[in-house]
This record gives sequence, structure tokens and C-alpha cells, in this order.
Amino acid sequence: MNIKEKIGLKVKSMREEKGFSIEHLANISNVDRNYISDIEKGQRNVSITIIEKIIHALDVDFATFFNDKSFVK
Amino acid sequence: MNIKEKIGLKVKSMREEKGFSIEHLANISNVDRNYISDIEKGQRNVSITIIEKIIHALDVDFATFFNDKSFVK
Repeated sequence: MNIKEKIGLKVKSMREEKGFSIEHLANISNVDRNYISDIEKGQRNVSITIIEKIIHALDVDFATFFNDKSFVK
Repeated sequence: MNIKEKIGLKVKSMREEKGFSIEHLANISNVDRNYISDIEKGQRNVSITIIEKIIHALDVDFATFFNDKSFVK
């Protein structure tokens, strides 16, 4: 799995853990819903500013978001 | 400080900790040296694939890289 796919799965699992729809996450993060959908599918080489918006909307820190065995080399 | 500046400072400090020049980091990460220089100055909205290249060249994991008080909200 490449890093874009790993990020996508992590965003999707954290969003679902919060009980958020893609539309809700889009609204509170100020990121387009189609863009979030593409990220979750592993189709976007997402930038650090977009990651920050999504992570903060999910109410977690970078360390928490990336502290996942899927991100280990 | 914005997230681009935080990433830049973290890359610079980890690079210096390893005793790497920008040129050496560029060579082993396969990222252009001018691009790395811009990242360190906080001038690039770096993508996740570039971050991955740099982090792996610095021989750390995402969790270690982002486990820094500067990235806490």
C-alpha cells in the first residue's frame, strides 16, 4: 500500500470513528467533499495544509494521527 | 507559526541532528536540493509523498517525526 492509500484509510477510519459523514467532515474542515472522497480512496497526494485541516477537524494531533502501525516503514 | 514553517524547522533540525548537509539529504531522498531548502524555510506546502521521502531518508517514522510539541494544536 502506498502512502496516499495509507492516509486515505486512516482518514476514513478516524472519520467513521467520530461518526462523521464525508459531507460533515467537509463542512467542518473547509475541504471540498469530493476532494475528501478522493483522499479516502488513496487518489490524492495531499498537502500538509490539507492534512492539517482534516486532522484538526477530526480533533486529533499530528502525532496521534500518524501513531499507527500502518505508517511504520 | 504555520504548518509549513513547523515542517521546515523540524526537517532542518532532524537533518542537522544526523549531520547531513542539504545536498546529502537531497541525494538520499531523491528530492531536489532547492526544494529541500525551500521546505526548510517554510515556503513549500509539501505533499505527503515528499514528506515520506524525506522522513525515510532521515531514517525515522511518521510517528517519530510528528511526535513534537510544535505540532500540537
